[in-house]
Amino acid sequence: MSATQPLDFLKETKKQIDGHIFDFLPSEHDHPEVHQFYQMMLDYPLRAGKGLRPAICLLICEAFGGNPQKALNTAAALELLQNWALIHDDIEDGSDLRRGEPCLHQKYGIPIAINVGDGLHCRMWEMLNRNADLLGYELAFEISSEFAQLSNSIVEGQHIELSWVENNRWNLTEADYWTMCIKKTASYTCITPCRVGALIAGSSKNETEPFINIGTNLGIAFQIQDDALNLIGEERLYGKEIGGDISEGKRTLILIHLLNACSPGEAKRITEIMGQHRADKDPDEIQEVLDLMKRYGSIHYAQQHAKTLAKKAYTQFNQAFSNLPASQAKDIFLDLISFLIEREY
Amino acid sequence: MSATQPLDFLKETKKQIDGHIFDFLPSEHDHPEVHQFYQMMLDYPLRAGKGLRPAICLLICEAFGGNPQKALNTAAALELLQNWALIHDDIEDGSDLRRGEPCLHQKYGIPIAINVGDGLHCRMWEMLNRNADLLGYELAFEISSEFAQLSNSIVEGQHIELSWVENNRWNLTEADYWTMCIKKTASYTCITPCRVGALIAGSSKNETEPFINIGTNLGIAFQIQDDALNLIGEERLYGKEIGGDISEGKRTLILIHLLNACSPGEAKRITEIMGQHRADKDPDEIQEVLDLMKRYGSIHYAQQHAKTLAKKAYTQFNQAFSNLPASQAKDIFLDLISFLIEREY
Repeated sequence: MSATQPLDFLKETKKQIDGHIFDFLPSEHDHPEVHQFYQMMLDYPLRAGKGLRPAICLLICEAFGGNPQKALNTAAALELLQNWALIHDDIEDGSDLRRGEPCLHQKYGIPIAINVGDGLHCRMWEMLNRNADLLGYELAFEISSEFAQLSNSIVEGQHIELSWVENNRWNLTEADYWTMCIKKTASYTCITPCRVGALIAGSSKNETEPFINIGTNLGIAFQIQDDALNLIGEERLYGKEIGGDISEGKRTLILIHLLNACSPGEAKRITEIMGQHRADKDPDEIQEVLDLMKRYGSIHYAQQHAKTLAKKAYTQFNQAFSNLPASQAKDIFLDLISFLIEREY
Repeated sequence: MSATQPLDFLKETKKQIDGHIFDFLPSEHDHPEVHQFYQMMLDYPLRAGKGLRPAICLLICEAFGGNPQKALNTAAALELLQNWALIHDDIEDGSDLRRGEPCLHQKYGIPIAINVGDGLHCRMWEMLNRNADLLGYELAFEISSEFAQLSNSIVEGQHIELSWVENNRWNLTEADYWTMCIKKTASYTCITPCRVGALIAGSSKNETEPFINIGTNLGIAFQIQDDALNLIGEERLYGKEIGGDISEGKRTLILIHLLNACSPGEAKRITEIMGQHRADKDPDEIQEVLDLMKRYGSIHYAQQHAKTLAKKAYTQFNQAFSNLPASQAKDIFLDLISFLIEREY
């Protein structure tokens, strides 16, 4: 490991993971339509994501005494998971931009984009099957089971969120938000990347249990910061349209705080705006909601909450794994926790 | 095995497979939205499908000397594969009915239906992971690899078909149709069910090679008959809207025959009608295309072709596996080939 800073490490990992993914995914076929399909499957993976999840997996593997090269295939599968899920998520949310470019369904239509997402989903399991040769049957199966559990969690979290939109439901508590967010985000952003990294390093399933709490706190913190950046970030850095969450009516901790803090009249107005179809919202209305979020300190509240959770994760990690020897990988992982909360993209 | 007729065998298998699937899929959850999601995942599997693919898998396993109980989990995974693929397929094709009821996206909207399909897709891999305990690691991995190959094939075939629609392409040859149909239908209807059945019975991968040709011929024959029933079947038996393939502009062998047989003026009119958006087509226009298909003998042509292919598959099977001892399972499998072509649903 040569990079010593979280950002450098993320960049270096991204390069390695990209290499692995592009070696694995097919890119050429004699049949023109199949060739085109292969190119479309490469579209999202080629866009400049952060590569956060594979980085966490590799760092934990190394910090736990494992060889991160052995975790590369699994780390890349996490990235494929993100890519198929994002393609479908973007359709389901009616999003416009992803990583600074039009979403796949905006480029090729919904039917083709659904199918490209399915294609990447299948390739993810094919990639996980390769672990049999790399890690032996038993560990390979254990990792595939972690991915099965993770995938179930993601679709359940996604269903909770989609149901809120479908039923135009706004009377949500923070607890409702935590449940959705743990299932949809925390599992795949932190819990599973940490667990599979440790498993590949030789930890037992029991030894990886503390990552459930650590990853939950860290994952929620990450999501809250993502929601905050969606409102106050710079589009150029952030890669999605600023205020996009307001246009698509997303239920964030920020919004839940606002609805509980504002007057009943304001709440009525906010849910009227948020509940409209995306195309019917004008920029002034989006600005109106954003101004209220700022006036009631909702963004600040959520960001403070994210910091508290990240600190908690930091402490939990040091307590649960106090016997873990000092290492560069461990330091970078801990620095990454801070970076995730301070980041601007 | 107690059933001696293909239809009885299909019914009996369906009951066993349904039992296995409903034991496996979750149906209850304290969280109301997750509970609802579980119910939605059960929707397509609960509808009365034929259960053809699992039946083929179990029959071949038994005919090859294996214990079909050991193949039950894999056979059920084939059924889950069909269900997630159908949910997405119905969205991609803009279909209305599936197995006599409104399609999932017609009931709950596209976003929720995409995600329910993803949920079943994840559960399919989870089910395949169970083979490790049932069949041992090595065979379990071999079967998962067959499923990975199969899934890749299905999405590629689906992409070819979706591209034809997207690009309004009508100048297709029979060869174009075969390529799409082998990838999309033959693989999962026949090739893989036969192969995994034989693998579980203890055959080597090499010994299952003849199933590629047999399954290709049988799978195409099945698809052609399906396309014919879509035009001339009874909606009550068939479970989809009659003429639905014309409304959705589907490129079938029947249509390709018609476009090559009719006058240039008629071909222009046919592609005008077929290329319209589904909602813009009126029943008279659908009838007009159907009448031309009948007048030019296109349906008869395709059905004859299906019969020839099924006979070829029958002969190939008897030649390739001439050493296979006589058994009830083998007889039912061979009867099933005839049934598939004579069926009315």
